[in-house]
Parts: sequence; structure tokens; C-alpha cells
Amino acid sequence: MQDLQLLIHRIIERININLREPLFDVGPYIRAAVEIDQMAKFYAFYGITTDHPLHFKFNHSSLAGSFFLGKCLVDHSVLYKSDIRGDELKSRGDIYQYDKFNIPVHDDEAIHIKDSFLLKTLVHNFSHDPENLEEFIIQNTAALNYANIHGAPVEGCFLGPFCTVDLTTLHDCVIGSFAYLQTGELSHELIAPGRIWIRSENGYQFNYQFEETILKKYIRLNPGNPPAGLFMDFVESRKDSFQPVFDAAYYKPPTHAPLGSSLSPYAAVKGKTRIGENVLVAQRAYLEDAWLGNGANAQENCYIIDSRLEGDNVTAHGGKIVHALMGKKVFVGFNSFLHGTKENPLTVGEGCIIMPHTIIDLESPLDIPEGYLVWGHIRNHDDLAKHSVSLDDFSKIDGEFKLGAMQFNGNGRTFVADFKHRIEHILEANGAYFEGNKNRGHAQKDSDIAFNTIQPYPEGRLKGIYPTIEILP
Amino acid sequence: MQDLQLLIHRIIERININLREPLFDVGPYIRAAVEIDQMAKFYAFYGITTDHPLHFKFNHSSLAGSFFLGKCLVDHSVLYKSDIRGDELKSRGDIYQYDKFNIPVHDDEAIHIKDSFLLKTLVHNFSHDPENLEEFIIQNTAALNYANIHGAPVEGCFLGPFCTVDLTTLHDCVIGSFAYLQTGELSHELIAPGRIWIRSENGYQFNYQFEETILKKYIRLNPGNPPAGLFMDFVESRKDSFQPVFDAAYYKPPTHAPLGSSLSPYAAVKGKTRIGENVLVAQRAYLEDAWLGNGANAQENCYIIDSRLEGDNVTAHGGKIVHALMGKKVFVGFNSFLHGTKENPLTVGEGCIIMPHTIIDLESPLDIPEGYLVWGHIRNHDDLAKHSVSLDDFSKIDGEFKLGAMQFNGNGRTFVADFKHRIEHILEANGAYFEGNKNRGHAQKDSDIAFNTIQPYPEGRLKGIYPTIEILP
Repeated sequence: MQDLQLLIHRIIERININLREPLFDVGPYIRAAVEIDQMAKFYAFYGITTDHPLHFKFNHSSLAGSFFLGKCLVDHSVLYKSDIRGDELKSRGDIYQYDKFNIPVHDDEAIHIKDSFLLKTLVHNFSHDPENLEEFIIQNTAALNYANIHGAPVEGCFLGPFCTVDLTTLHDCVIGSFAYLQTGELSHELIAPGRIWIRSENGYQFNYQFEETILKKYIRLNPGNPPAGLFMDFVESRKDSFQPVFDAAYYKPPTHAPLGSSLSPYAAVKGKTRIGENVLVAQRAYLEDAWLGNGANAQENCYIIDSRLEGDNVTAHGGKIVHALMGKKVFVGFNSFLHGTKENPLTVGEGCIIMPHTIIDLESPLDIPEGYLVWGHIRNHDDLAKHSVSLDDFSKIDGEFKLGAMQFNGNGRTFVADFKHRIEHILEANGAYFEGNKNRGHAQKDSDIAFNTIQPYPEGRLKGIYPTIEILP
Repeated sequence: MQDLQLLIHRIIERININLREPLFDVGPYIRAAVEIDQMAKFYAFYGITTDHPLHFKFNHSSLAGSFFLGKCLVDHSVLYKSDIRGDELKSRGDIYQYDKFNIPVHDDEAIHIKDSFLLKTLVHNFSHDPENLEEFIIQNTAALNYANIHGAPVEGCFLGPFCTVDLTTLHDCVIGSFAYLQTGELSHELIAPGRIWIRSENGYQFNYQFEETILKKYIRLNPGNPPAGLFMDFVESRKDSFQPVFDAAYYKPPTHAPLGSSLSPYAAVKGKTRIGENVLVAQRAYLEDAWLGNGANAQENCYIIDSRLEGDNVTAHGGKIVHALMGKKVFVGFNSFLHGTKENPLTVGEGCIIMPHTIIDLESPLDIPEGYLVWGHIRNHDDLAKHSVSLDDFSKIDGEFKLGAMQFNGNGRTFVADFKHRIEHILEANGAYFEGNKNRGHAQKDSDIAFNTIQPYPEGRLKGIYPTIEILP
């Protein structure tokens, strides 16, 4: 185990060098994050299909429980139960458009993780850094539980638990727990926990700050301790359901996935769950008494419980939906926590956009009308009034707009159009619009997938470290 | 599946080019051997330990159900449920002694399988070809069910079912079913089914020929059909016991293996089975109500049923022992079939050598005294008299000796000494003499092993073909 300890030490030192300004020591967080013994316990796995580009290279790394798809290179890193999905990368010959630039992509892009520590982290999409098109780089970086690195190359960063960095390039930043960033480029910044910040090149900004006292109930992080709070309790209490799924060599989910759909054998499926056509259920999704309409999807670390999704619903990575009725084409953003109960159910009307990192934790029944933009922390109807605006009204904003702890600046119509455009793109990419042989997306491409499992050296100095592995077509 | 069909076609053409003399068409045997659909169904797997050299490279091949350990390179080949154990290979810096030559080995040896078709075949040991020390080559070769390629580089050969080529270099040969060869170097020969032939550089020869009518009962091979007979029925009827073993990601055998022993999680273990100290049970061994004394072992494709092995027993690859009491240090050679019944049990006395490919299929109880050399086909006490000699008496032979269908030429003492020396070497290599920290062998080295699973492209043109995979330390 000696080598793995040295590797972790080395990663800490490298990140800390980057984080000398803002001065931040990642050591106490990384060391408390997971017991080193656990890192030799779980197999990692990767997918083989004919529909994805293929290149894996794992070099001097520990990969316990992690999953890889597409093109992923890992050097000198510790990846614990993380998901690295290189299935939306740019291809050689693509033209990357940015502002007035049209840059040809000269090689297939790959996700490249170097000298980093990722814990239950999701990495997806492609690098939105126009300066480096062929490499989606994650370097000298630590990310804690359920962080999402989505199209965001990061270097020298600490990403707190349940935070999301989305289509953003980060250098030497510390991102607080449950913060959401979609800001273009940032360096040497310290982002407070629970800050929701969108800053678009199209000229608008969206800002929201969770109250510290509220946030602590859901997620808190103290040096020397693993993350704690309701979010952690929620996922930990359902952990055992994944045991039989990972223990079988060929797990057959108890629910049928019809043609055009794919249900990962590494998803947990319980109760009376129904999967419609063109549905994507990713590995590490959790479905319990869930009704998924045609074209709906459940990404990594999604929990859909006692709920019905009418169709064409996007539930982004880490979204949780409990005791809810979701209308058609409702979008639920990253790591949102939508928690109704039998007594206090949630209904969300057609076409609503639930912003990333929204907490709806009900103490009375709630009915959100169709076509609303929703954010922040909502327990009841009064809270909803302070944390939502109809998309029609939002489109009328031009300039500054404030509501509670939310501030918007810019053109509301552009904001709504950009968001809707992105939702359409996600639905297309996921294969929600598949018909005949057209509009193939992840749901179709993942339906014929084979999984390879890999394990580390089981004993001795190298315990927990994986041999060097390279996979090519 | 198109690519896999082309690959098989190409392999057939390559072997047939080699086998234009003796003129032999391997096509009808290969095509009948296994349905092509089966080849996309099973995962292959390889072992990772810190105790073995490590290098795997799989290139444009189909590997369904096969296992790899140590150093194994596979190009343009079809390996179906085969075992490729590169854990007894020569190391860089070793001195290879042959006759009066002492040749330094300039690189770690690897098993290299090229343009070949191996079906349920075992490959083990190291190349005994003094002309090519660093590569144990298997090229342009087809081997059928339960063939053993043991330290025997082969090129342009057809190996029939249940045959064994042992410490022998073969060029352009056809080896009949259940033939056993340990002959140094052979080329352009056609070896009859059921021929047992040892020809030593130390100046002796051992020859035995099974009667055709008897052999057909146990194993027969006709072009256009898979092999048939009692041997095939025996293994096929026990196939289902391996299902749960291969279906689990982490299978835990129901029997405890004490310190110094290793029980592969890919062995089938049933009934009241007991494993002693320093015992090696390899993947694809089958144990049912088996009592394995200290230092005993059960190699690949061994079946030990309703039997007791007193200790330091070698059961070579493919040996089957049913309703038998085996004394200490009894050696049972490759693919031997020792079949007692409850009414007609078999007892084998201490230190007996059961020659490779011996059939003892009892119609009355049989007691073989200690210290005997046994071969051929034995149903009862009368048969035993014609197919055994005490090792003491055998040691007195000098010149020609005939008994039934057996012919021996040369010095009996050398033959017995060579055999005993080899048995000691096998016990050492397997770790039977492990004590404290000394004399580590396979039983100890394999006790901490991690298994990686690999799968082929699941659909499309490449269905059944594995991506290019390379594993290094």
C-alpha cells in the first residue's frame, strides 16, 4: 500500500502548489475523504461499444469502482467510484466555433486526468476551452463527493462536495460545496459554498447564494472530516442497493428496457419501475417505483423514487426526484434535490426549468405551474413565489432583476433561449428523439455495451495501484 | 460478426498451408468445434499479482472465456475457454542448459500465440525449444477440446481433442486425439490417436498404443462434428456447476483454503470438500466431495470427485479422479481418467506414477500397490497386470522391454529417476513444500490474485472481436 500512500501525498503536494493563492491546503480533505483500505477493494470498469471512439490508458493510478467510456487517459491519479464519460468529445475534423473563430479540430479529443484525486465525481461532455481543443484536461485537482466536472477543464483546483463546474475553464480555484459555476474562465478565485453563478459570453449573469444556515443542513464540509449533511445521508442510506448490481458479472436488471432505450446493468432498479422508449438510465442511477416516460433520462447519481416523469425529461447528473409528478419536458439541473413526500407531493408543470442545484424540500404539497424557471431553496408555496418566475416573464427582463437572493443582469430572452437550446441539445444527445434509424443518441449507443472490469495489485507495496493498461480499437 | 468469420477463415488457411504435408484440412474440425455465436458470449479474464511477471497484449483476437496469467501475447487468434498460464516462463538473466550448452536468456520469455485457434486448450510451462529461448510460440495451429500444450512450441499443427504435447517442439504435425508426446523435436509427422510416446534425449523411449475400438468409446473425432465419447460426456454433464462461478464478479468458494493454499474463485467446489495446506486448486478445476491433503494440487480441467488425496499429490492438467483413495505423492499424469465407483473403488498406493493419458475405468474394485508405474487401459486386476510394473523392477530394465501394447527401450533407472525428478520439480513449483517464508510456489503466489475481465465488441461487424488491449506493470 506504500505506493498508493505516496501517490496521494504527491497529489496533495501538487494541488497545494497550485493553491498557494488562494492559500488552501487540500490535505485534510483528501485524507479524510476515504480510507485507503477501501481503494483496493473495488473493481473499476470500462465500456466497449462499436458506437463510441475508444481509447483508454491507465498509468500508475488507483481507480477503485470508477467507470470509463470513450476516450479517457489517467496518469498518477486516484479515482474513487468516479464516472469518466468520454462519449461527447470532439472528433478530428470537427470545426469548433467560438465567437468569430472557426477552429478545425486536428485530432480526436480525449479526457486526460493527471495528478488528480476524484471522489465519486462525474466527468462528462467535452472541453469548452477554445484554447485547447483536443484535450479535456483535469490536472492537479481534487474533487470531492458528487462533484460534476461538465465540459470544464480544471487545473490546480479544489472542488467541494456536490459542486458543479459547467462549461468553464478553471485555474487555481477553490469551489465551495454545492456551488454551481458556468462562467467561462476563472483563475485564482475562491467560490463560496452554495453560490450559483452563471456568466455568459452572451452578456447575462445569474447569481444566487444559498443561506449558510440552510446549506449546512444539506451539506457541510470541515477539514479532517468527510462531508456530512442530509445529501450525504440520502445517498449513503441507499448504498446497499448497488451491492448486488456490482457483485454480479452479468447483472440483469429486473425491469425491461424497450428498443431504443438503455438501462445500465450498473443502475439500481427497485419496486415497480417502468422504462419507456428512448430512455437512458446511466450507471449509478437509482430508480425505485419510478415511471419514466418516452425520451426521459436518468443520468449518473440520479435518484428517482416514487415519481412519474411524463416524457422528454432531462434529469441531469446527480438530480434527485422523490414523490413527484414531472410534466413533459421538465428539466432538472445538476445535483438538484426535489424531495416531496407521500403527504406533501410535488407536481412540476410541463416545460419547467429547475435550475441546477435547486433544493425543493417540501413541508406542504406544492404544484409548480407549467413553464416556470425555478431556483434556490423551496419548502412551500411562499418560498416558491420568491424562487421562481414564469419563463414568459423572465424573457421580458432586459437589464437588472432581483428576487430574494437572486440577481439577474442582462437579456432574459437570451437566457431563456440559451437554456431551451441546451435542453434540446441534451435530449438529442441522449437519443430522446430516436426514430427508425435516425437521431441516435446515448440511449441507443449504450444499449449494446460490454463491460470490462479491472482490478489493482491485491497485495504488497503496489496494493491498490493498477497496472498500466491501454485499450485501443 | 463478419470480422470474426474472416479471422477464422484466415486461421484455417494459414494452418492448411503448413499442413500441405502431411495433407490435412483443419477446416471441417474448426468449423464444427464451436458455434460462432458462442464466441461473443463469454468474458475473458486475466490475473494480476505482484508475484508474477506481467505483460498481456491482445490484438485482433477473440478470447471468449479464456484465462491469462503472467506474460501472454495474442495476435489474430481465436481462443475459446482456454487457459494460457505464463507463470513458469524463463526470466532475463537465467542460464538455459541444454546438453553441453549454457545459453543466457537475454529477455523475459512470453507466450506468443499467433494466427491460431485454441479450444478449451491449456498452455503452460516454458518453451523447451533451445533454439528460441525468449518466445514460447504457438503459431498457425489449431488445438481442440482439452488439448495440453505444455512447454511445447508448436507451429503449423493440428492437435486433436485431449491430446498432450509436452516439452516437445512441433512443426507441421497432426496429433491424434488423446495422443501424448514428449519427444524433443518432430516435423511433418502424423501421430495416431491414442499413441503414448516418450523419447528422451537421455536415450530411452516409451511407447504405448491404445486400441482403436477402446479409444473410440472414450474419445472420437470425425470431420464436420465436434468430438464425442465418454470423456466429452463426463465434462459436459458437469458444465453447469461452473455457471455460478463465472456469473459472480467476486465469487467466494464455499470451502476455506488455509494459509499457503490457493483456491481459484473460478474453480467449481461442491459437497464436503476439504483443502489442506499448500494446496493449489487452479481455475476450471472441479472438486466434489474431495479431500485434498497438504501439498496436493488440482490443475486446470481436473475433476476430483468422491476421492481422498493423502498429500503431495500431483494431478496434472486435465486429470480426473473419481471414487479413489490416492496415497501420498501419487502422481497422476495429464488427462488421465481414473474412474472408480462406489461399488468398485480405486486405491492407489503411495508413490505410484500414473502415466499421462492412463484410463482406469473399473468394473471391479482395484488396489494398486505402492511404488508402481501404471499406464494404458485398465478395468480390473487382470488388466493391471498387463499395464503396470513396480518402479523397482522398472529401474532394472536395461535395453528392450515389452508388456502388452507397451514397448520400452533404454535404461529403466534413468527413466524412473527423470520422472521422479520431474515430480519433485512440479511439487516445488506448485508450492507443496512451502514453509515459513521458504519454497514459495504457485499455491502461495496465486493466493493474492485479482482478476480483470474483458469483453469483445458486443454488436456489429466486430462482434466477438476484442479491442486491442495491453497491460504492463
